[in-house]
Amino acid sequence: MTDPHRARINALRDRLAALDLDALLVSSLPNIRWLTGFSGSSGLVVVTAREVVLLTDFRYATQVEDEVSDDVRVVIVAQSLWTGLWEVLGALLTVQRVGFDSAHLVHRDFQRLLEKGGRWQWRPTTDVVEQLRESKDPTEVAAIRRAIGMAESALATTLSQIAPGMTETMVAGVLEKALRDAGSEDYPFPSIVASGARSALPHARAGDRTLATGDFVLIDFGAVAHGYCSDITRTVVLGKATEEQREVYDVVKEANARASRLVEAGMRGMDADALAREYIHARGFGEAFGHSLGHGIGLEVHEAPRLAKTAEAVLPVGAVVTIEPGIYRPGWGGIRIEDDVLLTESGPLVLSGFDRDLLEIM
Amino acid sequence: MTDPHRARINALRDRLAALDLDALLVSSLPNIRWLTGFSGSSGLVVVTAREVVLLTDFRYATQVEDEVSDDVRVVIVAQSLWTGLWEVLGALLTVQRVGFDSAHLVHRDFQRLLEKGGRWQWRPTTDVVEQLRESKDPTEVAAIRRAIGMAESALATTLSQIAPGMTETMVAGVLEKALRDAGSEDYPFPSIVASGARSALPHARAGDRTLATGDFVLIDFGAVAHGYCSDITRTVVLGKATEEQREVYDVVKEANARASRLVEAGMRGMDADALAREYIHARGFGEAFGHSLGHGIGLEVHEAPRLAKTAEAVLPVGAVVTIEPGIYRPGWGGIRIEDDVLLTESGPLVLSGFDRDLLEIM
Repeated sequence: MTDPHRARINALRDRLAALDLDALLVSSLPNIRWLTGFSGSSGLVVVTAREVVLLTDFRYATQVEDEVSDDVRVVIVAQSLWTGLWEVLGALLTVQRVGFDSAHLVHRDFQRLLEKGGRWQWRPTTDVVEQLRESKDPTEVAAIRRAIGMAESALATTLSQIAPGMTETMVAGVLEKALRDAGSEDYPFPSIVASGARSALPHARAGDRTLATGDFVLIDFGAVAHGYCSDITRTVVLGKATEEQREVYDVVKEANARASRLVEAGMRGMDADALAREYIHARGFGEAFGHSLGHGIGLEVHEAPRLAKTAEAVLPVGAVVTIEPGIYRPGWGGIRIEDDVLLTESGPLVLSGFDRDLLEIM
Repeated sequence: MTDPHRARINALRDRLAALDLDALLVSSLPNIRWLTGFSGSSGLVVVTAREVVLLTDFRYATQVEDEVSDDVRVVIVAQSLWTGLWEVLGALLTVQRVGFDSAHLVHRDFQRLLEKGGRWQWRPTTDVVEQLRESKDPTEVAAIRRAIGMAESALATTLSQIAPGMTETMVAGVLEKALRDAGSEDYPFPSIVASGARSALPHARAGDRTLATGDFVLIDFGAVAHGYCSDITRTVVLGKATEEQREVYDVVKEANARASRLVEAGMRGMDADALAREYIHARGFGEAFGHSLGHGIGLEVHEAPRLAKTAEAVLPVGAVVTIEPGIYRPGWGGIRIEDDVLLTESGPLVLSGFDRDLLEIM
């Protein structure tokens, strides 16, 4: 276990003590990766006051050795993870009260706990590890910065090649090849390339629409470095922007700038959301900003904290959050400008720096 | 609802009657898409003997109209899907016994059923819709064929550009751009480009290793068309293959050919698995084929049925399954050859046709 993992396990142990739990069963893969470094797709982790046990199967026998330190006891299960779990728990004689991830464990696996794990007291928990993950340590911030660098380099390449006549899917191909050339390990989510009226659909992906002069092209995408995600959006115009396009764009740009400048740790998620929402509302576009302002990024591209109208939780120091106001007008088009912002003790630090002026692609 | 969706709903209603359920709550997104056509990322569906109700949120108000027919009653929820659900169920006066997806519903949502949905009898079900999805109808087979065509065209492009000195990640970029140029909507799973000794790792992805002359390069990837996946693997050699490389390759090739020729509907998954496994074992490589022979593909890239040592279920007519034997020798390299095969009434039809001879990339 490298130092960051040891610190994370210790932080989790403090939480377990506070929750009066002898152990936590961790079944969510990002939580497992954050706690141990293991990035495989099959695993369970048990954390007690003294031990960290990682169960996985033979396919990961080599990988787990590379990724996980000696502080973690690795068990390669002979049959299923669950039969392995009963053996591991059975040998932990002082463990009685075991928490599990209520938001991750499916009903079928919960039934296994009740049926086969009857000698333990199972306690549902929510977001125990997720809350710890909100504040990023320096290794995590460095990885996110690297993922942002990959994304920005790929976006520059893409904008130099984008042209009327290409389909959205072809643009996604250029973007994704550039992400790979920059070293991105994966795509954190399906890239969005939405053009013309489709840019007004908040959940468009890339489709077979052909780009035409005059279109807004909204590009929302990210890269992955050491497992950590970036998430960036820029909206450009093909050809010369109309006055109306520029006017609406500038409202989004100013909303992004205000929120990026004023968001800070200690603020509730709803207050952060209001930084952009109130400005957009005052400019007469309140109805056209139909989603929340942002979310945390890290090992997952959507994680805590939330920056949303209903988010009462306070933003912690060390969170990296997206700031992504938008205005969407059905039939006309949509604009979103999204940056990734680190909440430091001394204020917000905008990690993404790609040009926010309205770019006209000639 | 287009005809295939109507037929699917009717098939599900027969199952509900057999299971003595008044309704099924469907929470898995691929199941929702298969039943209604809706491809959004937020939804719940309730199917009764008379009604199909789809709940989603305002972000999908436009999309759902395009995707779903008038036979489905769409409810755009004001607050959460769950508060919407209680209203919908409350108005279905004859509904008492409601099944839910035990393998998909997380514990937290199961608690909602118990707490807020106390007036209904909740019955866990497993794989009710998944089993119906095993047999593909002609529209589904056509979509899979299209996804296979995209994948094969992208693979041809990639092999014409691959060369020593490129990293695995760069190869993935070439491949994925070619998939996008062919119109692929998405990637069904993170592309695997594993070279040299890394080709022996059954779960390698693309990494920063640089390709060298003499390497095996294993490429396992797919395309997505109309939501349906293809899943193909080819293994090539950079430069001239050694005699040993050719010898081991030919064992995998013959195992693939036998299984593709002999697999058929009516056979248990374990018997299909044995078609390749026994041959590889007889040739002395039994220990080196450490995964199962294949799996169904469709809206998900891993779906029922399974072709595996422990799979007792019978393969149905209409299933499209992968046939993907492999041999992996740690430190030396690995070979996998994977095709997609439709199980027709009159025998197997191999849908993927990319060259299976050992290609030497010069």
